[in-house]
Amino acid sequence: MIKLIALYRKPADAAAFDKHYNEIHTPLVRKYPGLRKLEITRVTGAPIGDAKFHLMAEMYWDDKSAMDAALSSPEGKAVIKDLLSFAADIVTIFHGDVAA
Amino acid sequence: MIKLIALYRKPADAAAFDKHYNEIHTPLVRKYPGLRKLEITRVTGAPIGDAKFHLMAEMYWDDKSAMDAALSSPEGKAVIKDLLSFAADIVTIFHGDVAA
Repeated sequence: MIKLIALYRKPADAAAFDKHYNEIHTPLVRKYPGLRKLEITRVTGAPIGDAKFHLMAEMYWDDKSAMDAALSSPEGKAVIKDLLSFAADIVTIFHGDVAA
Repeated sequence: MIKLIALYRKPADAAAFDKHYNEIHTPLVRKYPGLRKLEITRVTGAPIGDAKFHLMAEMYWDDKSAMDAALSSPEGKAVIKDLLSFAADIVTIFHGDVAA
């Protein structure tokens, strides 16, 4: 399995972020072709100090070709367009192989 | 469910990091009391630009009290002691509620 990870730093307006994320963005993410799983984590703290992150979304596909196809699909482009509209300055995206 | 996330930036010596992580650190992590799941992701890239991270480990517990108990147990202290010995400068740790 491969997963794409979107990690959001704390937004200036958390309530507005959450509303857009839940009501607009998540429904778009769920339309990714071939998506096997979506796991959303709401960050609540850190063992030492403060967490600098607000939310993490993890999207799973069978393999890299399935992920690449999803990202370049019309549904995938809609996700990116929306993402850039509300979180361009606070999101970091990377992907990796799930090893365990 | 709650999860603790350890996110590692790229180490100076990836081979040495991986060897220590796989042979020493992961066996210690697996001893956490009450651990429900461990998911390790080896970062392979980013859709745009380069990924600044090398690895992400996610540790799941039933709830915060179970996580707190694990972190303060002798096994948890052994994990932190080892972590600080090889990755203090590249690791970020936070936790959150798994919402989906």
